[in-house]
Amino acid sequence: MSADSQRIEKRRTRLRRLVRRETGCRALLVSSEVNVRYLTGFTGDSSWLLLTDDGALLVTDSRYTTQVEQECPDLPVFLRESSQSMTSAVEEATRSLNLKELAAEADSLTYSSWLALTTALESLTVKASSGLVESLRSIKDAGEIAETRLAVEQSEKGFAVLRAMLTGDMTELNAAHELEHAMRRFGAADAAFPPIVAAGPNAALPHARPGNTRIDSSDFLLVDWGAAADSGYRSDLTRILATAKISPKLEKIYRVVLNAQQEAITRIAPGVQCRAVDAAAREIISAAGYGKNFGHGLGHGVGLQIHEAPRVGGSSETELKPGMIVTVEPGIYLPGWGGVRIEDDVLVTRGGYEVLTSVPKDLDSIRLP
Amino acid sequence: MSADSQRIEKRRTRLRRLVRRETGCRALLVSSEVNVRYLTGFTGDSSWLLLTDDGALLVTDSRYTTQVEQECPDLPVFLRESSQSMTSAVEEATRSLNLKELAAEADSLTYSSWLALTTALESLTVKASSGLVESLRSIKDAGEIAETRLAVEQSEKGFAVLRAMLTGDMTELNAAHELEHAMRRFGAADAAFPPIVAAGPNAALPHARPGNTRIDSSDFLLVDWGAAADSGYRSDLTRILATAKISPKLEKIYRVVLNAQQEAITRIAPGVQCRAVDAAAREIISAAGYGKNFGHGLGHGVGLQIHEAPRVGGSSETELKPGMIVTVEPGIYLPGWGGVRIEDDVLVTRGGYEVLTSVPKDLDSIRLP
Repeated sequence: MSADSQRIEKRRTRLRRLVRRETGCRALLVSSEVNVRYLTGFTGDSSWLLLTDDGALLVTDSRYTTQVEQECPDLPVFLRESSQSMTSAVEEATRSLNLKELAAEADSLTYSSWLALTTALESLTVKASSGLVESLRSIKDAGEIAETRLAVEQSEKGFAVLRAMLTGDMTELNAAHELEHAMRRFGAADAAFPPIVAAGPNAALPHARPGNTRIDSSDFLLVDWGAAADSGYRSDLTRILATAKISPKLEKIYRVVLNAQQEAITRIAPGVQCRAVDAAAREIISAAGYGKNFGHGLGHGVGLQIHEAPRVGGSSETELKPGMIVTVEPGIYLPGWGGVRIEDDVLVTRGGYEVLTSVPKDLDSIRLP
Repeated sequence: MSADSQRIEKRRTRLRRLVRRETGCRALLVSSEVNVRYLTGFTGDSSWLLLTDDGALLVTDSRYTTQVEQECPDLPVFLRESSQSMTSAVEEATRSLNLKELAAEADSLTYSSWLALTTALESLTVKASSGLVESLRSIKDAGEIAETRLAVEQSEKGFAVLRAMLTGDMTELNAAHELEHAMRRFGAADAAFPPIVAAGPNAALPHARPGNTRIDSSDFLLVDWGAAADSGYRSDLTRILATAKISPKLEKIYRVVLNAQQEAITRIAPGVQCRAVDAAAREIISAAGYGKNFGHGLGHGVGLQIHEAPRVGGSSETELKPGMIVTVEPGIYLPGWGGVRIEDDVLVTRGGYEVLTSVPKDLDSIRLP
């Protein structure tokens, strides 16, 4: 058994205990694509995993036969015909299992699918479950940490290429596309999300979409980007780049955000509540008079999805645990002027934390030549 | 009122009639992101549209205030606080409307959201609806057809760049990334889906993922790609490229697929059932002895989503109507050898059809220099 299969087997074992404890059921139907991937290694879609107390069965169809053989050769498979619905296939697959109850993922199944499932499984009680696989996924194992490091490397090498090739007449959109292309040259399967490149005032929107604005139309730009490695694990960073002399206002705000971010990072350790980390950054930004200009949470877990558990916000009582990987990304946004956000990915370790990302962020390093 | 707003107003008017007729309700809660975009022009997420018999209200939050002003300035907005849940906001927004029943999209809401919604709206009956906006979307208006033409142009120009730059030592993945990058240079916001580049035997999988196989490792490759224009409309094409002398086997199979595709296209006209178009291609492929090697439907609608209504398959009784845009993509797949698929996008016109895509596909034109 390879290290990968051992890790996956461990996840299933943990999940079985969790399902039993949280739902009382002996089986869980996993319909979320990313959760199926986490529990099997299978990367296709239209496939559900039926996890029972002594086994696992992938309900899929013949389009994926070869892919299943390549990605999870040991996994038993139930092949449905293209004329058979997914829920009817699940019914057929559960028939011999002698189940009385089945838990199913209420945050992933649509209401239509839920109706179809409960109708098809009329002799069984279907129980809604929520966040079980997600809570396991919030703690990364050694393989997942290695894959996240790879995604960080791909995104940082891509950013170095973009930095080297930036010219003032490029548009935000050109720059975003070049960045994505560069990350792929270093092996990324994809961007972790469509990169944000926002010049000056556009950076005042935390969710800005790159457009046809020239990057030298203002004296600085914000870049928020990440890579998705082939394994699906993601990185997520934000940096500011200055295209002209750094103004006193930019310098002042930049220093506040950087100070807030560094202070928050030092608070990261096992047992600390997420809201305490958020508060550490928020206090510094508030003390500088920008409290109401930091309108979002401090960060979020990152892994197979760009936003996943835990949420690092003002009301999150989740305690940090070794193996969690979270973003730390305070920001100050001034409508009409722009926004400054600095974001790194941080691994919670037994002794405290390790910052996985390493693009320089001191004020001197943000100047473009 | 701009042409765009007029088109959008028309869609809402049609939808109101459809909601009344199909559900008996005076209001529909639209939660599908792409359906919200279709009915408003708004491209953000986390926003639901409440369409009533005399109005429309976008339930969103302050992150999107600026974007709503830019993209749909005339649309009334209900802004929820970040601490208020979406379903609680919908409850508040419906309070003054004096509704007894509300239809909601059962194919888009998760079961969790459905429960939260019906709990929040306890004094209202929530009725599950399915496919209403999707059926409107299957028939494109003049603006949508123009945007699809743009996506076709972006994808074809990108393909021309890829063709010109292909070298035998490129991997499938390199080629896929170069293709995506090239489409963006011509204004595409994104690839319509991750492009498939599959050399020889890999092309035997209809859903192949590009990997590290060199494109000259076999004598031909399959490229299945499309562009997403900034408006969200998509194109979808497939071509075969020969990296070496065309073998008699490839020539034979290619001619069968091309013949089947051309025959199917000529059948396209208003009033024709989708399954008849599928059958036209399938008969030719079966007559050549490859019936069981064509394991998928002939095509699908394409628009804001890469796969949308109508389905063009053997059991689809949907009648073609002017304004529908469908792919026609027969294929023959031989495990171990490879697969040939040829795909174009076809607009149903009043008089018959118009092929929107124009990359040459006669046998001579697939040879690489």
